[in-house]
Amino acid sequence: MTQRQLKLGFILHGVGPGWDDWRHPDAQVDASTSLSFYKRQAQTAERGKFDYLFVADSVSINARSSPHYLNRFEPLTILSALAAVTEHIGLVGTATVSYTEPFNLARQFASLDHISGGRAGWNVVTSWLEGSAANFGKEEHLAHDVRYRLAEEYLEVVKGLWDSWEDDALVRDKETGQFLDPDKLHELNHKGAFLSVKGPLNISRSPQGQPVIFQAGSSEDGRSYAAKHAEAIFTHQNDLEEAKLFYADVKARARGFGRDPEQLFIVPGARPVIGSTEAEAEAKHQELASLVTLENALRALGRSFNDHNFSQYDPDGPFPQEVAAEGLKSNQSGSARVLELARQGLPLREIALRLATPRGQFVGTPEQIADRFQNWLEERGSDGFNLFEPLPGQLDLFVDQVVPILQKRGIYKQDYPGGTFRDTLGLPKPENRHTLARSRRSAA
Amino acid sequence: MTQRQLKLGFILHGVGPGWDDWRHPDAQVDASTSLSFYKRQAQTAERGKFDYLFVADSVSINARSSPHYLNRFEPLTILSALAAVTEHIGLVGTATVSYTEPFNLARQFASLDHISGGRAGWNVVTSWLEGSAANFGKEEHLAHDVRYRLAEEYLEVVKGLWDSWEDDALVRDKETGQFLDPDKLHELNHKGAFLSVKGPLNISRSPQGQPVIFQAGSSEDGRSYAAKHAEAIFTHQNDLEEAKLFYADVKARARGFGRDPEQLFIVPGARPVIGSTEAEAEAKHQELASLVTLENALRALGRSFNDHNFSQYDPDGPFPQEVAAEGLKSNQSGSARVLELARQGLPLREIALRLATPRGQFVGTPEQIADRFQNWLEERGSDGFNLFEPLPGQLDLFVDQVVPILQKRGIYKQDYPGGTFRDTLGLPKPENRHTLARSRRSAA
Repeated sequence: MTQRQLKLGFILHGVGPGWDDWRHPDAQVDASTSLSFYKRQAQTAERGKFDYLFVADSVSINARSSPHYLNRFEPLTILSALAAVTEHIGLVGTATVSYTEPFNLARQFASLDHISGGRAGWNVVTSWLEGSAANFGKEEHLAHDVRYRLAEEYLEVVKGLWDSWEDDALVRDKETGQFLDPDKLHELNHKGAFLSVKGPLNISRSPQGQPVIFQAGSSEDGRSYAAKHAEAIFTHQNDLEEAKLFYADVKARARGFGRDPEQLFIVPGARPVIGSTEAEAEAKHQELASLVTLENALRALGRSFNDHNFSQYDPDGPFPQEVAAEGLKSNQSGSARVLELARQGLPLREIALRLATPRGQFVGTPEQIADRFQNWLEERGSDGFNLFEPLPGQLDLFVDQVVPILQKRGIYKQDYPGGTFRDTLGLPKPENRHTLARSRRSAA
Repeated sequence: MTQRQLKLGFILHGVGPGWDDWRHPDAQVDASTSLSFYKRQAQTAERGKFDYLFVADSVSINARSSPHYLNRFEPLTILSALAAVTEHIGLVGTATVSYTEPFNLARQFASLDHISGGRAGWNVVTSWLEGSAANFGKEEHLAHDVRYRLAEEYLEVVKGLWDSWEDDALVRDKETGQFLDPDKLHELNHKGAFLSVKGPLNISRSPQGQPVIFQAGSSEDGRSYAAKHAEAIFTHQNDLEEAKLFYADVKARARGFGRDPEQLFIVPGARPVIGSTEAEAEAKHQELASLVTLENALRALGRSFNDHNFSQYDPDGPFPQEVAAEGLKSNQSGSARVLELARQGLPLREIALRLATPRGQFVGTPEQIADRFQNWLEERGSDGFNLFEPLPGQLDLFVDQVVPILQKRGIYKQDYPGGTFRDTLGLPKPENRHTLARSRRSAA
């Protein structure tokens, strides 16, 4: 068996993943809507042979939202722009099944896949913020389990639309005048519990056949969904032991669904803070942590609990019991992490500040970070990482100083193989369902 | 008063605006999903100082659809890609109010406006093809007048979302830690006959404040809508006399709504066929017309009549009476043109072929085309044109040979003024409604 290689994604998050990152002296305060900022990060990540760029999303804000959520590019539009100024790197965007027409979503991702020469990926999410429904004429959110049933049906519809056209449906013979082979264009005629979509899609099958499917969410429902449908799962893991349990669980589930578990990549978020010495790295982390106020840390905590107002409690007292009881209702994996810290007896202040600036496992020198990445890969804590840039300049440091070490150790690619995002990841192009059915019919 | 100047748009349509244009020897058959093709056209149009690029759209197809409708990029994604490889040209995309969530639409256009440094435009349409509803879980289309009532409310919502943030809402003071001025972020709280949207939008006010509003559709409802709301109207006019009537009518309506009619641009479609001599231009037009078969011309005709099958009639007989009677139900301005030709007693074959390859008024030498453009401008038949490229290479010919004549005559800009698409068009940036209300309150 050949050496497994780390899959690396870079998360484009504008002003930074933390609430007050924008206050750092080197931070560009208008980064979240700056094409030149996004372009520079994208091209740097491509220089570092990253497998993909990742754009997170949400669909509601209020005046108490984090700077990074408040104001930012819509994923499909910014990824399309970046497609025109990059060549190899995958382009993964988050889009919710809750409030987007599946025809429009299937079409925009197929269009991105064509524009980029086969580099699109869709991170499938169900919306979990209560405020979102009201932006879409809905009275209330669907319950957690219902959302995942919708997500199942939705993905089935989107994949069906992506298969509307067989790969060779476009004949385009100037002599005979035949543009299309009508037998190779298919209606979907889906009528399900949640959705009704006729098809066909009005864009031909894209270079990847089907854009790569990501899933973010580590709840029970989220794990099953990922194991069944996703090709990569973006997760949060606090340490290697926890990560190994998660990894083994999800891979076993994938096997249970009859899938090859090597074709489902587990990529926890990582926030490397790189210094030339361990002390320098630690000092950089402390500098970052010092930017956030207790007030904002409490707000950030509220985000996992339906915007609950935590400022009403004594910050040095315990995590409030009544909130803990309600906690599992909304963003399950988010609130679960908080509840675990609460069970450990940490005071509210400490929980809030720790979550606001997660230290993570990757504060150190380039060698130390390479060691830990290798350790997680070899111990099967992950198949790679989804990198945040917690401090300005860290992406450049990672590309210039960590990537060469990983390459030298043979656990990271020297270059892109060429072709599509699926080719980069070593994933096969899904065969078109109608082509498959035809070849089965003629074999029978 | 300064000399009025022509506004020019270029329509990106991939394999060509006509059914069988792709059969031309010089045509690139995969143009409709080729980023390099779109990029080349966009950059050529920008070299020619065109005011904007225009991407048309539709949301349903079947195996009998025209090659150009069948398979093409989704507008927002391709325009975002082109934003990254152009600098000055406006980026106008069609999107239907019928089957897109207004929050998503407002957000994607605002995102495009940020990405492009203020160059976005939205061509507001209501869907008129019967097949579309079934792609969005709907049983049937809304009636024509109801669609325009929805379009009124929808635009109101979208403009309201674009005003969610006042221009100076983002304080971003690293010292004080204040990122947002919460008094300058506003919920919309819209609850109307068709839509219910809370807001605020999760992207700050874009460089243009509001992307430029286009409208395409020349029916009674369409004219009123454009006169009331649009900053440009894309129309089809067969000759200067007809165009002058339309122009006078729409401008009078705009005046009736209390608007400055000079801030509503009327841009008929034009299909220049340029030759070094008149005879060469005419021969090129004939070459183009020879590409389309009667069968496809009849199919194209069907598109304006709910995909009616015209191949069942004697092509040398008259236009079928029963279809004429039903004609005004769907795409009103499209079918109206056909019915006018039918009243003139032309046989079905002639009507179909004439519509499949419209000759238009602009077949000739560069001087002749410049003369006619100038004539339409000065006679107030139009404020400019939305250009199709009916034959490969015509855009380059136009830019290299017609543009310099127009510039020399002082009826076309020498260069972009810099700034936003609104600056290019000479349109003011709409003041934010909340900022305006505040300044009125403090003045009172």
